[in-house]
Amino acid sequence: MDLYHAPDAQRVELLKEIANKIRVISVDSTNACKSGHPTSSASIAEILSVLFFNVMRYSTSAPRAPNADRFILSKGHACPALYAAWSQTGLFPESDCMTLRKIDSDLEGHPTPRLNFIDAATGSLGQGLSIAAGMAYVGKYLDKSSFRTYCLLGDGEAAEGSVWEALHFGSHYKLDNLVAIFDINRLGQSEVTSLGHDTETYRKRLDAFGWNAIVVDGHDINELDKAFFSASNTEGKPTAIIAKTLKGSGFVGIEDQMNWHGKPLGAKTDEALSRLRDLIKNNGPARISPESPPDDCPEVSLAVKLSEPPSYKEGEKVATRKAFGTALLKLGRNNNRVINVDGDVKNSTFSIDLENEFPNQFIQGFIAEQNMVGVAIGAAARDRTIAFCSSFACFLSRAFDQIRMGAISFTNVNFVGSHVGVSIGEDGPSQMALEDLGMFRAVANSTVFYPSDAVSAERAIELAANTKGITFTRTSRPATVNVYPNDESFEVGKCKVVRSSGDDKVTVVGAGVTLHEALAAADELAAGGVNVRVIDPFTIKPIDSDGLKSAIRATGGKLVVVEDHYPEGGIGEAVLAAVAGEKLVFKHLAIRELPHSGPSAALMDKYGISAKCISKAVQQILSA
Amino acid sequence: MDLYHAPDAQRVELLKEIANKIRVISVDSTNACKSGHPTSSASIAEILSVLFFNVMRYSTSAPRAPNADRFILSKGHACPALYAAWSQTGLFPESDCMTLRKIDSDLEGHPTPRLNFIDAATGSLGQGLSIAAGMAYVGKYLDKSSFRTYCLLGDGEAAEGSVWEALHFGSHYKLDNLVAIFDINRLGQSEVTSLGHDTETYRKRLDAFGWNAIVVDGHDINELDKAFFSASNTEGKPTAIIAKTLKGSGFVGIEDQMNWHGKPLGAKTDEALSRLRDLIKNNGPARISPESPPDDCPEVSLAVKLSEPPSYKEGEKVATRKAFGTALLKLGRNNNRVINVDGDVKNSTFSIDLENEFPNQFIQGFIAEQNMVGVAIGAAARDRTIAFCSSFACFLSRAFDQIRMGAISFTNVNFVGSHVGVSIGEDGPSQMALEDLGMFRAVANSTVFYPSDAVSAERAIELAANTKGITFTRTSRPATVNVYPNDESFEVGKCKVVRSSGDDKVTVVGAGVTLHEALAAADELAAGGVNVRVIDPFTIKPIDSDGLKSAIRATGGKLVVVEDHYPEGGIGEAVLAAVAGEKLVFKHLAIRELPHSGPSAALMDKYGISAKCISKAVQQILSA
Repeated sequence: MDLYHAPDAQRVELLKEIANKIRVISVDSTNACKSGHPTSSASIAEILSVLFFNVMRYSTSAPRAPNADRFILSKGHACPALYAAWSQTGLFPESDCMTLRKIDSDLEGHPTPRLNFIDAATGSLGQGLSIAAGMAYVGKYLDKSSFRTYCLLGDGEAAEGSVWEALHFGSHYKLDNLVAIFDINRLGQSEVTSLGHDTETYRKRLDAFGWNAIVVDGHDINELDKAFFSASNTEGKPTAIIAKTLKGSGFVGIEDQMNWHGKPLGAKTDEALSRLRDLIKNNGPARISPESPPDDCPEVSLAVKLSEPPSYKEGEKVATRKAFGTALLKLGRNNNRVINVDGDVKNSTFSIDLENEFPNQFIQGFIAEQNMVGVAIGAAARDRTIAFCSSFACFLSRAFDQIRMGAISFTNVNFVGSHVGVSIGEDGPSQMALEDLGMFRAVANSTVFYPSDAVSAERAIELAANTKGITFTRTSRPATVNVYPNDESFEVGKCKVVRSSGDDKVTVVGAGVTLHEALAAADELAAGGVNVRVIDPFTIKPIDSDGLKSAIRATGGKLVVVEDHYPEGGIGEAVLAAVAGEKLVFKHLAIRELPHSGPSAALMDKYGISAKCISKAVQQILSA
Repeated sequence: MDLYHAPDAQRVELLKEIANKIRVISVDSTNACKSGHPTSSASIAEILSVLFFNVMRYSTSAPRAPNADRFILSKGHACPALYAAWSQTGLFPESDCMTLRKIDSDLEGHPTPRLNFIDAATGSLGQGLSIAAGMAYVGKYLDKSSFRTYCLLGDGEAAEGSVWEALHFGSHYKLDNLVAIFDINRLGQSEVTSLGHDTETYRKRLDAFGWNAIVVDGHDINELDKAFFSASNTEGKPTAIIAKTLKGSGFVGIEDQMNWHGKPLGAKTDEALSRLRDLIKNNGPARISPESPPDDCPEVSLAVKLSEPPSYKEGEKVATRKAFGTALLKLGRNNNRVINVDGDVKNSTFSIDLENEFPNQFIQGFIAEQNMVGVAIGAAARDRTIAFCSSFACFLSRAFDQIRMGAISFTNVNFVGSHVGVSIGEDGPSQMALEDLGMFRAVANSTVFYPSDAVSAERAIELAANTKGITFTRTSRPATVNVYPNDESFEVGKCKVVRSSGDDKVTVVGAGVTLHEALAAADELAAGGVNVRVIDPFTIKPIDSDGLKSAIRATGGKLVVVEDHYPEGGIGEAVLAAVAGEKLVFKHLAIRELPHSGPSAALMDKYGISAKCISKAVQQILSA
């Protein structure tokens, strides 16, 4: 272990002054927009001062450089302090802080990567540490770089289970390049936190979770600096710094008082800052510069394609979930930055195919989906990996808030959800995703793939890897025959006309298992002299408005949509939105009640999405 | 502390025999349906035997009686063992177990309350302990009854953060009537769990989380029984029993082996059961009966109405979130079983109004939304309370999986989500719910309210309290004037025509803040000689198909829907689905990009949902 050298008295004074400037700027900027969180900013002022000016290695000219130490403010509402700290580095003028929360300023109410010094959005609590853990994992095991990752959490958010998932992940993978700082300021939004200032309980819990747990006075520059030194010199486990602080620290009459959460100081400002303003001698940026980071992080390319095209035999039955595993492996062969994060279902989703050949490109997140998603977002941040994250589709709902925040982070994570709909069969409704299309369609800037055979599934995964923003690919449990030849090509937003004649009476839209039911219905109907046009949308978002309209018009507006999903938010509503204004005679076959356990085919029939039900719906439309 | 009396040798033998019968039935029933989890059942056989036949107090004639001890199988996939245990109590014939997972049997693949001995559905892991904690909380603080609550968890699911939220909640509220049993069988679905058989780490963590943590051999009847005795005699803290077990325990050649998760034994059965079958002498139900529970749980009525009608002054501006607080308090005054579970935002959602007058009817869940929802589901189980659960609407997405499972539990929890849409203003996108309508619409059997003024908000909350299934009420941050008189009445599934004339050119549907924008647009348009019909849907699910069609037909099919929500899954798609087949000229105003921080009115204008944007859309439709 290196010998610790405490900062000299002059440096300590400079760091104290920076902390106080952070406080004052936080008060002034929140006063300027009449909203925001000055007291939550004040409690972290010394932590930020020490981190940004005595610990972290980065360059103000490239704050997001891959070799720079990373900082995630999990308690995102304290961003006035973060913006203030960056202004002191000289990254932008201090006066910019006064544009906080204004519609034309990217210094938003909570941090987002619209700013060039933010890697991931925060503001929904308890999510930062998972993202930091994903970054640290990539740094240690993929980049093999010396950059370190720091995450600052509030004590209120320490009640979030996702934090404990991340803590468990951090120690399991021995992320000694990761530091969590807990700002124990005692006060939540509406009352005292459950543990208040009981730092010993925090210490016991963090120690039990396998972290190097250190309690410090969070307003003492020396104690903080020494703890960060301990973190840098502890091998095999991450460090948690439990910083006892005061909310509104330094504000006269406000410090450690209730009912000051999320409130600008307003008329109280002059009194509250009476001591602090006097302590500040330096009006310019800080007179300390950060240390530059070592240049030891490799450049990476995220260009990727399938290492070889789909190669299935005629009539072969393959589940789309299996084709996902195949495609993931082919992408992994093509680019060693293709990774997958799993939640102990790799043998069901088939992400195990990647692990078997490239164990270094596979992250086992165990049964902790919120952290799994956060780790994937962290791993994908700063364009370091092409990250897939796969589970049963229904269990991705566990992390909807993380996924929603991922969109605000502009993440490019590719989600893959298997075991969808009643067609999974006997496991019953708890394992059936019946709302996943609605969930992922409602994610900002998302792309939603729903491949119906192995060829289109491989291409969906390849397209997903090359699509910006969040993607979701819905895969199915049952094995089905291929609909497309091995050399078929696919595009985002382009549907496929799978069956047509010059005399189609009705358009039938199906996807996944219901496309196969639609084709069976089409055969049956054709035998009875009724031709239908069968459409595979391929992507549900964006959905092919022109292709759908063309089919609908060719069949006199007669339309059946059939989906293994609840009616709300799924394919039916996506189609209706895409063709709104068209003349329609419409039947929507979807799962309209809480399903039961049972054999797959029997359930599809019982809940009205089998070939038989489709034929009946077509006949009803034609006889109406 | 009472003196411990160990069961005598004969009783121990009987309990061992029951455990082995549970194993054999689990194997036979999963063989019969060729799916399911016999090995996960085998590891808990002794735990169930001791609990059901030597510890728990209940009556087979009324397994869900309010005074009966409760049991939640959080690792729901082990239900073959649970069904086998109940068959041994004589509740139903052992032969019924062989209908496992069949479409006409309620012995489903994972337990649901379709069965009269199940309080809440499980199967998505890590959720049972929160539900059990909700039950225990009600037992201790509302019922003041002596019933005890037992929850059996798997070790794989112990990685779920929601478990640690529940553990924190349990110790914080000193739930000494709650026992968690962790089945540490070492093997997950796809690999060894992260902690394997490291029971000491589990013990340290559970102890640090404030539980009476006891490690036992989970296959030793005496050790288990003694641990349950310790639980019953420990005051002020809940007990966690860490049971070291073997997956597939007792199955020759399978016990403690990988790759047997979720697999019937099939051809291996005879060999695997060769020892066990010989040990079983009793072919009928168990020769031990459970002890009856004391009759100390009060009867409750869940009939409820507002204690007094809405009473607002003309022109008064009130946010619907504030009206929620008022209505919640009025319901609480009318029925002391009305409770609210909060996530440290009571002063923003206004659930604090209930706490201030009836602190006993308020549960602070701190910042842990998954547990908050689970506690509400547990509190509402067996019709013990009228449970509300309120937070910022965007943070309810944190618990989507719990809410989804709540629907499978047939829960009647009423969710209320505030701070929706861009109209919240400066806090920015992380705090804006823009997908909540889509999320709650896609919940099975849900009812979704979206009140637009304080009068309708109070009535929505009253209707929600009286509606079966999950309800969601969407409330808004900005204060608005009332649209309705104090004596207006409302119905689920009935819209309101808020503005109409004999000469309306376009129908405009708005809700919440956009109803007010629509009315402002209507004024502006009327001044220019164009009348529009303005509709307030009141409930988004079910949505008033007839009322909408009538308005749309009266305006020649011309329709504008405007909502403070992403386009997917919200009001626009709900309307399109409800009126599919109608001739339409349609404009959908919704939030179509990731929003920014800024003032509320400026954001509504920027993202296209303000009165000005509505007027423009109407003009465009009319000039098309």
